Amino acid sequence: MVRWEPGAAARLRAAAFDLYAETGFEQTTVARIASRAGVTERTFYRYFADKREVLFAGSEDIQHSMVAAVETSLPSLDAAKLVAIALEALAAFFPADRRAFSRRRQAIVDSQPALQERELLKLAALKRALAAALVGHGVEPARAAVAAESAVGVFSVSFARWLTEEGERGLDAVQREVLAELRAIVMWV
Amino acid sequence: MVRWEPGAAARLRAAAFDLYAETGFEQTTVARIASRAGVTERTFYRYFADKREVLFAGSEDIQHSMVAAVETSLPSLDAAKLVAIALEALAAFFPADRRAFSRRRQAIVDSQPALQERELLKLAALKRALAAALVGHGVEPARAAVAAESAVGVFSVSFARWLTEEGERGLDAVQREVLAELRAIVMWV
Repeated sequence: MVRWEPGAAARLRAAAFDLYAETGFEQTTVARIASRAGVTERTFYRYFADKREVLFAGSEDIQHSMVAAVETSLPSLDAAKLVAIALEALAAFFPADRRAFSRRRQAIVDSQPALQERELLKLAALKRALAAALVGHGVEPARAAVAAESAVGVFSVSFARWLTEEGERGLDAVQREVLAELRAIVMWV
Repeated sequence: MVRWEPGAAARLRAAAFDLYAETGFEQTTVARIASRAGVTERTFYRYFADKREVLFAGSEDIQHSMVAAVETSLPSLDAAKLVAIALEALAAFFPADRRAFSRRRQAIVDSQPALQERELLKLAALKRALAAALVGHGVEPARAAVAAESAVGVFSVSFARWLTEEGERGLDAVQREVLAELRAIVMWV
């Protein structure tokens, strides 16, 4: 019988992040995460496939929301406008009050080559999903590949800048800045 | 005693590619590669760390040559011109007569998720190396990240297009086309 435990996923994630930061990702077991969150190991596995997935569970949501934004946009929009919509959907996932959490997560990911690899795979999947959504929206495949590459490139550079910078700018503002820099570069290559 | 064997690396690579295509990457052993190339296993390991590295040995050369091109360029060049120089160095690695080889290699890489991951890691390393070279050349770090992302993005989209398209265009021509498409997109995002 599956019992509903209010807030268990959030408690598990908080417990996992604390333990990864305190004793390292490698050393942390699912048993310790569950115990600190006050739930059973079985409850952990109801929410996450393994201890790595605690860090990456959000990336499917991000991808779905970006793809949905493209799919539900006006049929008449061109590749550039669809890239803008994709970037907006990505930025909406990271409001200002999520930055502290994202910073903690990034520090853990950066501490382990295997986690960095997983992050690269998720970005590559995001790129493929966006290219497919663009093609589904009528963008010619070759152009969709360029558009998806540039959108995910702008997002990932902006995200890294947003995590490390001072101040209170949102990710959307950083993305606009990076886009302006990208324009200035590609104009003169 | 290390004995010099003329053409052993090239023979080993040809033997490995044949076997990967015939019996699959997973099923191929270093012993079979060495035997088909007419050398000992020890000779194999003189040239390659493992059977995976036969596919990725070239990527260090590519990276070094791209970094060297940036490092030896005029000090007065800006980020855009350095991106152009990096792209030129990358394209120079793939003359028209290398396309058949690159296609065979790509088919093998695409057949195995672990090899695709390795390819993503190599592209990420290429990006980091280019960003570092740009910073070494006086480009401000934030701008260097954008420039490196766009250069490696253009290269990887162009490379995929070059491998799949008909006709005899060089990679440099494809890169120019992709750059033009990228400009047209980022102008209107």
